[in-house]
Amino acid sequence: MNSLPSRVFETAVNELAKLPGIGRKTAMRMALYLLKSRREDAEAFGNAIIRLHNDIRYCRECGNISDNELCSICESPKRNKSIICVVEDIRDVIAIENTGQFNGVYHVLGGIISPMEGIGPNDLNIPALVEKVESGSVSEIILALSTTIEGDTTNFYIYKKLHSLTVPVTAIARGISVGDELEHTDEVTLGRSIVNRTPYENTIQKKNQ
Amino acid sequence: MNSLPSRVFETAVNELAKLPGIGRKTAMRMALYLLKSRREDAEAFGNAIIRLHNDIRYCRECGNISDNELCSICESPKRNKSIICVVEDIRDVIAIENTGQFNGVYHVLGGIISPMEGIGPNDLNIPALVEKVESGSVSEIILALSTTIEGDTTNFYIYKKLHSLTVPVTAIARGISVGDELEHTDEVTLGRSIVNRTPYENTIQKKNQ
Repeated sequence: MNSLPSRVFETAVNELAKLPGIGRKTAMRMALYLLKSRREDAEAFGNAIIRLHNDIRYCRECGNISDNELCSICESPKRNKSIICVVEDIRDVIAIENTGQFNGVYHVLGGIISPMEGIGPNDLNIPALVEKVESGSVSEIILALSTTIEGDTTNFYIYKKLHSLTVPVTAIARGISVGDELEHTDEVTLGRSIVNRTPYENTIQKKNQ
Repeated sequence: MNSLPSRVFETAVNELAKLPGIGRKTAMRMALYLLKSRREDAEAFGNAIIRLHNDIRYCRECGNISDNELCSICESPKRNKSIICVVEDIRDVIAIENTGQFNGVYHVLGGIISPMEGIGPNDLNIPALVEKVESGSVSEIILALSTTIEGDTTNFYIYKKLHSLTVPVTAIARGISVGDELEHTDEVTLGRSIVNRTPYENTIQKKNQ
């Protein structure tokens, strides 16, 4: 594609095209939308992005994003601080919070081990997790990472780190999705769902909740 | 979806979700990407958007975006200033420029007539087009708007405005796309392509260019 007739516009398109999943055509549509919107709105947009880095804080305890030193979850007296759910990033915190099924606290790793992207264990917030367990206040660690090779690798790394500390380490259940038909489920998932079968009563309980 | 644990993050997500075609989940992924990127990169991103409104200029002649008073197309001595191609917005300028098939200049309307979106003829850059034609320097007006109801309406409105001025008004050809199979082409398009059939030699010429 030829260069655009304005460097200012070109710069905006290039920046928008850096966003994940956004190609040059979509970026151009977005830049045009922003150009057509009111000046105040475009400025609010730009400033919101700049403020992201300058004003955001991370919870001292769990690494979740926060407006204060402690996030609203770690601050809440209603949450069980001894059950820690290990997640990749804050999107997972939000996803699990939306289920309404978890009453413990989180530990945000800030990524998962991915040699392809150059992310090793030292880039992740794992030492703080080990410290928490060493302090003796933790009754269970729930590993809630993606069921990918990277997620499995990270799970195993954390498991090995915590193994000697005799804290129970669990992982979120892998099985067929609710609403899925058996014939369309892949073999590995279906196999796991048979190996890890649960008492039928649990299924009913979950449905009623 | 529940509110996010940080207002700063929430604001950024809300702003990104305003972009055309971006839902809340994608906006969250984008915000997280920007949060994970380097501070300078996020600032460059935000500033590029803010600069869009503050620093961009529009070509005095055609309404195309530009870094100077005249855009590079209107400024070029190689372009035929008497043939004006009327387009909706700058994306269409870029699309037509990319074909390398047009050597005239453009007239950017800044939109098309759309009662649904509250855009009337008075919101568009039409008077300047009429003025150009009235000045007598125009040998052809090419209407190159989308083949939608809104595009047709706008075409017809401009055609009526220019009708008394005896300038030849043409519209870009409508027919089956190059590479399309006949059986998959809709009836209206196929019908038009028969009514507006062109000398076979033209087809060969176009292929060779």
